[in-house]
Amino acid sequence: MTDESRQARWESRTEALLAVASLLYLTSYAVQVLASGLPRAWRDVCLAVLCAAWALFAVDYAVRWRLSGQGLRFVRGHWLDTVVLVLPLLRPLRVVHVYEAVQRRHGRPRLTLHARVVTYAGLSALLLGFTGALAVYQHEHAAQGATIRTFGDAVWWTAATLSTVGYGDVAPVTPVGRLVAVGVMLGGLALLGAVTGSFSSWLLQVFAREDEKRPPER
Amino acid sequence: MTDESRQARWESRTEALLAVASLLYLTSYAVQVLASGLPRAWRDVCLAVLCAAWALFAVDYAVRWRLSGQGLRFVRGHWLDTVVLVLPLLRPLRVVHVYEAVQRRHGRPRLTLHARVVTYAGLSALLLGFTGALAVYQHEHAAQGATIRTFGDAVWWTAATLSTVGYGDVAPVTPVGRLVAVGVMLGGLALLGAVTGSFSSWLLQVFAREDEKRPPER
Amino acid sequence: MTDESRQARWESRTEALLAVASLLYLTSYAVQVLASGLPRAWRDVCLAVLCAAWALFAVDYAVRWRLSGQGLRFVRGHWLDTVVLVLPLLRPLRVVHVYEAVQRRHGRPRLTLHARVVTYAGLSALLLGFTGALAVYQHEHAAQGATIRTFGDAVWWTAATLSTVGYGDVAPVTPVGRLVAVGVMLGGLALLGAVTGSFSSWLLQVFAREDEKRPPER
Amino acid sequence: MTDESRQARWESRTEALLAVASLLYLTSYAVQVLASGLPRAWRDVCLAVLCAAWALFAVDYAVRWRLSGQGLRFVRGHWLDTVVLVLPLLRPLRVVHVYEAVQRRHGRPRLTLHARVVTYAGLSALLLGFTGALAVYQHEHAAQGATIRTFGDAVWWTAATLSTVGYGDVAPVTPVGRLVAVGVMLGGLALLGAVTGSFSSWLLQVFAREDEKRPPER
Repeated sequence: MTDESRQARWESRTEALLAVASLLYLTSYAVQVLASGLPRAWRDVCLAVLCAAWALFAVDYAVRWRLSGQGLRFVRGHWLDTVVLVLPLLRPLRVVHVYEAVQRRHGRPRLTLHARVVTYAGLSALLLGFTGALAVYQHEHAAQGATIRTFGDAVWWTAATLSTVGYGDVAPVTPVGRLVAVGVMLGGLALLGAVTGSFSSWLLQVFAREDEKRPPER
Repeated sequence: MTDESRQARWESRTEALLAVASLLYLTSYAVQVLASGLPRAWRDVCLAVLCAAWALFAVDYAVRWRLSGQGLRFVRGHWLDTVVLVLPLLRPLRVVHVYEAVQRRHGRPRLTLHARVVTYAGLSALLLGFTGALAVYQHEHAAQGATIRTFGDAVWWTAATLSTVGYGDVAPVTPVGRLVAVGVMLGGLALLGAVTGSFSSWLLQVFAREDEKRPPER
Repeated sequence: MTDESRQARWESRTEALLAVASLLYLTSYAVQVLASGLPRAWRDVCLAVLCAAWALFAVDYAVRWRLSGQGLRFVRGHWLDTVVLVLPLLRPLRVVHVYEAVQRRHGRPRLTLHARVVTYAGLSALLLGFTGALAVYQHEHAAQGATIRTFGDAVWWTAATLSTVGYGDVAPVTPVGRLVAVGVMLGGLALLGAVTGSFSSWLLQVFAREDEKRPPER
Repeated sequence: MTDESRQARWESRTEALLAVASLLYLTSYAVQVLASGLPRAWRDVCLAVLCAAWALFAVDYAVRWRLSGQGLRFVRGHWLDTVVLVLPLLRPLRVVHVYEAVQRRHGRPRLTLHARVVTYAGLSALLLGFTGALAVYQHEHAAQGATIRTFGDAVWWTAATLSTVGYGDVAPVTPVGRLVAVGVMLGGLALLGAVTGSFSSWLLQVFAREDEKRPPER
């Protein structure tokens, strides 16, 4: 059996497990951040889930590295996986892929490319926004001179940032909060690029189709 | 007579009526929000118009659902109609379609595709802006610590949001106001995408035409 | 002699005169707004220039309307000219056209389309920014509770608005100032569209050229 | 030996030296701005490096002008070099070119065009952001009524400006700081254009490839 196929088999087998683990990771992180009045026992459960999920991600990364037989080149070639290993909060973004896989498996026709781009961009923005709001809320809500005091403020701030509107009525003040903010800004830039790019290419397609229908007149 | 044609006949017959109803809906909502000093009788008239128009929308939705004979699939396939049924304030956006239909009926040539996109985007932005300003003003002007105190403030805030400038000198503070704001932000993203996409595809068309005219030199 | 050719002759003859008049209009407006300590006599000269230039614009519009022999259709067909007649401050934007005409007359090769778009967008942004800063400064600097107090503030605000950044540290507070601001925001949206669209179509051209050079491999 | 080839030889020989000089320039500028507690001797070293590097740039510009034998046309034809001579802080942006040259020399395949655009835009944004944050910090941190007080504030402000979000919680207040800010805004516009344009053209390429694969069905 070749390395390639063993890698593919590993990935197809662990796909669902890892997707569940990443959603569990996000959920327990959210519970820990938001439910400040939780009894100690539940907090420990959340922490255990966080650690277990992360250990799973690390094992998966190590196995795939091993199976690839590539050495350090693997780290550079799979830089997205490496980033996701260090920042496991971003892992749920991969659920978008799983969603497509599920659709295909059930024999439904795949969405057209435009609808897929819009769906991906929307789902990614939602997930990134929720993650960003959680992280910013965690680091900001107790800081001195903070304007982001409730989770509602954090969500509001995230929406204003992702759409690149940026009112500034609430804004992070701690270094870590601002670092998270830069990540959300990058997501906003990408979202804007996805919306604009989709619209632009959709328009061009419509034009091309209209040109084909009509005889050239001008 | 097939289901398809009965549906089409229903839609062509109710089109004008529904357009008038949706404009009436928006008008009476605007009157109720803005004319706070209105005598009680007039306020009741406005409320009656609001309810009657919404009942009309519900009946239309039900009839079309029935005629389609599709069951729950109809709700998903016509998700835009479903959204508009729940948020009837967004219904006037459909006037843009009626406008085009009127143009066609009178035998005028249809606008070129670029002009149509710009006209649609402009009209939609105006309608969405007016609706958003109304809704934000309604929920904000009496809130504690609000910065949006007059309808002028609400319009100014909407313009800054739709263009994704976002000064933040006035900004919503209530949860409902911020929810409306997220809708206006999405409209701003779409508007930016429409303007940029139109310009980009227009440029590409001009380039293609110039290339055809000139003999290839470089 | 046909109507068409008489119109064309009129336009080519009055082109330079109108360009000078529009620059004089902008200059005397700027002097009146900025030089508050000017002696009365000079202010009267500025006012006279403003009126004379506007009269010239009105005469030109009337003559072209007459020559076209179109009746009310002319107003709709030349809506940009109509807007410029009502808001003569925007007229210098037409200088961009004159600039191109001058270039052609002197036998220099015309700029490539991309360079032209960027040059136009840059010049238009500069002119629109200067005009907007002047108009906002005039209506804001003496208003109660204004944050735009000096012409430097107005220029800074205009730059933040045209780039759709929008800090909001200074922002207009009067109704007229905010109306001007909406115009500047529209200019910012258009500028963003021009920059993005140019880049996008330039990239596509480069790709097409590279594809031609290389033999198809993938 | 023709002028052309002498120019090319000069450029290929001085390339590495100038790249090192420009990085040294940026480094010593950063040290001077950030390390306010540095002993006098070290500050003098930094100043000497700054002057030496700038002298090198001036000599390089003069030699290339001479070799070109073009007179004043050279200044206009190489306006970017002229700008960089006056604002040597922007010179490290040319490192991006060197990076590509190094890649080519070592026999590695060149990046694909899309990856190159994204890499360039990212590196340029990082360098421009660092330079802008330094310059704004230098002119703002001691100004009266300034909100940018630490280098962290300056970096945060730069990120919000480059992504065109613009919170306005911190913003420059001095004329020079605002001038620098306009430069950073222009960089933000260009970055947005690059991200959106890349995405748009990438989408169009994907569509074209999918169209080729499938038989025309619609």
